[in-house]
Amino acid sequence: MPGARITSGERVTLRTVENEDIPFLQRAGSNPEIRYPLGNPLQNREQYEVSDDRNAPDRFLVCLEGDETPELLDDADDVTRIGCVSVADAHYKRPELGYWLVPEFHGEGYGTESLSLVVDYVFRQYDTPAVGAGVFDFNDASRGLLELLGFVEEGRRRKFMFVDGEHRDMVQYGLLREEWTE
Amino acid sequence: MPGARITSGERVTLRTVENEDIPFLQRAGSNPEIRYPLGNPLQNREQYEVSDDRNAPDRFLVCLEGDETPELLDDADDVTRIGCVSVADAHYKRPELGYWLVPEFHGEGYGTESLSLVVDYVFRQYDTPAVGAGVFDFNDASRGLLELLGFVEEGRRRKFMFVDGEHRDMVQYGLLREEWTE
Amino acid sequence: MPGARITSGERVTLRTVENEDIPFLQRAGSNPEIRYPLGNPLQNREQYEVSDDRNAPDRFLVCLEGDETPELLDDADDVTRIGCVSVADAHYKRPELGYWLVPEFHGEGYGTESLSLVVDYVFRQYDTPAVGAGVFDFNDASRGLLELLGFVEEGRRRKFMFVDGEHRDMVQYGLLREEWTE
Amino acid sequence: MPGARITSGERVTLRTVENEDIPFLQRAGSNPEIRYPLGNPLQNREQYEVSDDRNAPDRFLVCLEGDETPELLDDADDVTRIGCVSVADAHYKRPELGYWLVPEFHGEGYGTESLSLVVDYVFRQYDTPAVGAGVFDFNDASRGLLELLGFVEEGRRRKFMFVDGEHRDMVQYGLLREEWTE
Amino acid sequence: MPGARITSGERVTLRTVENEDIPFLQRAGSNPEIRYPLGNPLQNREQYEVSDDRNAPDRFLVCLEGDETPELLDDADDVTRIGCVSVADAHYKRPELGYWLVPEFHGEGYGTESLSLVVDYVFRQYDTPAVGAGVFDFNDASRGLLELLGFVEEGRRRKFMFVDGEHRDMVQYGLLREEWTE
Amino acid sequence: MPGARITSGERVTLRTVENEDIPFLQRAGSNPEIRYPLGNPLQNREQYEVSDDRNAPDRFLVCLEGDETPELLDDADDVTRIGCVSVADAHYKRPELGYWLVPEFHGEGYGTESLSLVVDYVFRQYDTPAVGAGVFDFNDASRGLLELLGFVEEGRRRKFMFVDGEHRDMVQYGLLREEWTE
Repeated sequence: MPGARITSGERVTLRTVENEDIPFLQRAGSNPEIRYPLGNPLQNREQYEVSDDRNAPDRFLVCLEGDETPELLDDADDVTRIGCVSVADAHYKRPELGYWLVPEFHGEGYGTESLSLVVDYVFRQYDTPAVGAGVFDFNDASRGLLELLGFVEEGRRRKFMFVDGEHRDMVQYGLLREEWTE
Repeated sequence: MPGARITSGERVTLRTVENEDIPFLQRAGSNPEIRYPLGNPLQNREQYEVSDDRNAPDRFLVCLEGDETPELLDDADDVTRIGCVSVADAHYKRPELGYWLVPEFHGEGYGTESLSLVVDYVFRQYDTPAVGAGVFDFNDASRGLLELLGFVEEGRRRKFMFVDGEHRDMVQYGLLREEWTE
Repeated sequence: MPGARITSGERVTLRTVENEDIPFLQRAGSNPEIRYPLGNPLQNREQYEVSDDRNAPDRFLVCLEGDETPELLDDADDVTRIGCVSVADAHYKRPELGYWLVPEFHGEGYGTESLSLVVDYVFRQYDTPAVGAGVFDFNDASRGLLELLGFVEEGRRRKFMFVDGEHRDMVQYGLLREEWTE
Repeated sequence: MPGARITSGERVTLRTVENEDIPFLQRAGSNPEIRYPLGNPLQNREQYEVSDDRNAPDRFLVCLEGDETPELLDDADDVTRIGCVSVADAHYKRPELGYWLVPEFHGEGYGTESLSLVVDYVFRQYDTPAVGAGVFDFNDASRGLLELLGFVEEGRRRKFMFVDGEHRDMVQYGLLREEWTE
Repeated sequence: MPGARITSGERVTLRTVENEDIPFLQRAGSNPEIRYPLGNPLQNREQYEVSDDRNAPDRFLVCLEGDETPELLDDADDVTRIGCVSVADAHYKRPELGYWLVPEFHGEGYGTESLSLVVDYVFRQYDTPAVGAGVFDFNDASRGLLELLGFVEEGRRRKFMFVDGEHRDMVQYGLLREEWTE
Repeated sequence: MPGARITSGERVTLRTVENEDIPFLQRAGSNPEIRYPLGNPLQNREQYEVSDDRNAPDRFLVCLEGDETPELLDDADDVTRIGCVSVADAHYKRPELGYWLVPEFHGEGYGTESLSLVVDYVFRQYDTPAVGAGVFDFNDASRGLLELLGFVEEGRRRKFMFVDGEHRDMVQYGLLREEWTE
């Protein structure tokens, strides 16, 4: 059974991540097209876990719903997982977003909708004046997405991490509450 | 199998919450129409659990029964879960009520009946002179329900929590035993 | 060795609670003159503990310093513990204050100074628009202290707890950030 | 006995942090003059620990030596702890520096010397092309120190954290290996 | 379900090792044709484990895919495990490669392709100037494989281990980043 | 009390390492003149430990004895610790030696004597046809010592580790039993 639907856009829904979603997350997270842009280490399934730590990041699956039934209680198993969004560090500083879609679903606007939903979630859920996101400088698609939503480039940490064969700069973005809701 | 039926009204029954009810509770608890009015955090299924702590809140499912069989021991699987009521803190102070229904069942009197059943339960079960409930000030439906049953507004804790994008006041209600049973 | 000094007023200092302070806290917390006004249960020393949970309340000893040396690094063992202040629930709602002094030090203004220091601490440390405190209605000294500092009475939860032979009302106070800093 | 001396400058030495140093670190870390500029939470001694995790940050005490004996094996107990420097995250990205001195020793050049020693340490110990440090924008002393050593301001994360009563920007600095060794 | 596909060549894929792969690894690792050339001890299944230590070696299954579907999300269970490659010690020195194929698949070029994929992985994933591999001197097939890929014989540790009835020399190979990418 | 004396030369003795020796080992191991040539990480005292693993390396303190009493059981506390020798991996392959002296005792022949004692120990204690040792190429003193005792240079692992600001080659030495006892 898919996790609980927590918010919906026109085309995608965000659902809680449950243990049954681990294989999807691990497979997608191992894909070089996803892993290298994020600078993530490889992990086996044991290293993924659904945390019960209340300070753990919020993590949501991005899903396409197989039918159009909008009811809350449907147990439809025909959701298609297409990515993941997360909100980290909200318990002590401005939250930091993470997001990815599997490559088959790039370029169709799902990313914009997903990221927009999670920004809405952040500003409704947390009393934070801003939200941030860091992207490696070679990740043009991800940077374009942030800029489209109004995120402001705030800096560039030079040679931040070794990713895909090179030392990469990390470009830092931020969005103030008043920049979003205006 | 549904949990044990602990009390029945004209239309709804209250049943114990069992592990098989976790997906229902988690899904409903993630619904923005329920989550925001309650000011609850998001949780995945791992974070829900059926507690064996004797000081944990009493928690009951609100159910519609599929048939009219009133027997105690029926194993009917055709109950429809429509909400949840809870009784917290009864081991050390006046108990505090919690309650919600899924949105599809709002406005049909199920809430009044459920809450009435649980107030009855409290005053039969516990040697308490009063029972309380706190509601965010924007939650007009919930406040109306309490007032309909005779709860008295006792105070307003200003800017109590950040909920759905704003700092919200918490309105505190209380009901004395003599106010109920009169 | 006393815990770290985290802030100082004219006469008292607030210090972190360390394991060596448990006997003082347990003895004072068992004193009927302190326990009944707070409505606290009796606890043995094992039930007190210095938590390493980051969501646990902030808890500080109220101390008189034996000498006047203001240096950071003094290892002075001649501090006199006279009470305790705490800040609970700050990780998810407006913080709730707790405070007590041992009876020998009542009526000399130490309470006002201690509570004032901890309100300052709350508004510097946490991004909260308000702070709260609940007091049983018979605790005139404590209520006077809150009112002296500008706390506003926000409500009265009737017959909230059975304390010292009777069901007592809990009076709820709140202080907005703008009410404090003005 | 003080921890092992790992490097020395003209006036200060860096020593490993040992369990006996926890009270110093906790006391200094609770001092508002240190805690607020760093944006650190309060901690009791239980929450400090000397980690045996090989991925934990390197953490060194900044010390003044009581005598001039340069021998390796001296067991001199007359070292004066005046601060702490740390190197975090070196196992997966460019390392991030942290540093503080107790207020009594500010303004005498000890910070410059300590930070210079730890930058030397980083570039000798780790195969990293750069080192970073983040400072809140109001911390002029700390920012001046980084700039004096050649660190470049790389960005400003707006409203990064609530510190000392306000939402503060975090200014990010970085230093490339070739900028240091030139 | 097979582990996540992390990279693919023309004929083989590398997948993460999951708990379900332990019986394959243990059986193959016990085969004298594999165990003796590697100089590995016998192990029961309990001694194999899927580690969640982030400093543990990277370990990948070499697989033939049953169908030609290249999609990320296929749940195909028809992969054929034919061997294993690993990358050890990358967190503190130049990484060390390990590799084996089950005998049925020797001599068909799978080894060359697998080793080539893992060398690519190492230089994309780790900021290392070189990679190493040690082979017993009697293991002509394995030595030929390293030499074919450009590894340079760097030394011979005489009488390094007692393997298959004799004290064997260990031949050490290394490959610099510039030797690989040229 | 010093550990047990396990062998003696003309001027030095080798003694077992006990918990009381940890501060000496940690201090010496943090000394840049020892740490960088060995390529060892920094460690605090918690990270050192006297292992009870039967496969752990043999580790002996190199000591000067304060008096000339040769009895086995002397409790003399006037031993001077001047270094450490170790024998690793003997349970599965040819043993690997490690050794260092504190700088004050370099150049006086203590190293030759200590290393000679430990080679004798290895060939008396273990049924091994050879013993090995690896040295970074810049460590001329250590390489001279091995060559003086008859160790043969067997290879050079290029760019083996990042040590003291550069990627260093590791030079591998080996000594056969017949080369030693001849």
